[in-house]
Amino acid sequence: MSLGACNVVRMIMLRRELGEALREERQSQGRSLRDVAKTASVSTAYLSEVERGTKEASSELIASICVALGRPLSQVLADVTSRVERAEAATAPVPLHERRISVPARDAAA
Amino acid sequence: MSLGACNVVRMIMLRRELGEALREERQSQGRSLRDVAKTASVSTAYLSEVERGTKEASSELIASICVALGRPLSQVLADVTSRVERAEAATAPVPLHERRISVPARDAAA
Repeated sequence: MSLGACNVVRMIMLRRELGEALREERQSQGRSLRDVAKTASVSTAYLSEVERGTKEASSELIASICVALGRPLSQVLADVTSRVERAEAATAPVPLHERRISVPARDAAA
Repeated sequence: MSLGACNVVRMIMLRRELGEALREERQSQGRSLRDVAKTASVSTAYLSEVERGTKEASSELIASICVALGRPLSQVLADVTSRVERAEAATAPVPLHERRISVPARDAAA
């Protein structure tokens, strides 16, 4: 399997990880979608789609949401980086020689 | 000045920092725009615009460029986070009480 094919299978979407980081931050502040959307001058429906990772947010919109959440972009990106690291670790292919093959006792004794 | 107005002035664009991180990585590998663009299945002109921060790249395209560069998305994001941190530090407003006001000797003596 080529590197390309390998990576296509475990492609991690930035918009999804970003959306989840933004939603987690908003919820940790106990704030509603409506509240943050209004402060960021975006529709509630649009912010909801960004949080669910179904819409790509422009850089301007991401900056506005960060301001609305009172968090620097760098902190949000650090959260996203951690999420992506975990996702990569969870989806990394395991090389064949690292797989444990349990051999039933009767076969081992044969 | 409100927090919002303050942040609009020093708004940092994710696409610009991402573009610079991607270009720096490509150049550190001594590779051409054409080579990376071909591997990522994107036009050279488009990759150039992404690197210059004039085009928002979709999450799919970002993932493809990362694969083409042979770098996990998390490492590229860590680079971008560092860049954004530096940009934030460079553009952060200095509170008035932290500004040094040099008083000429004659005024101090008066």
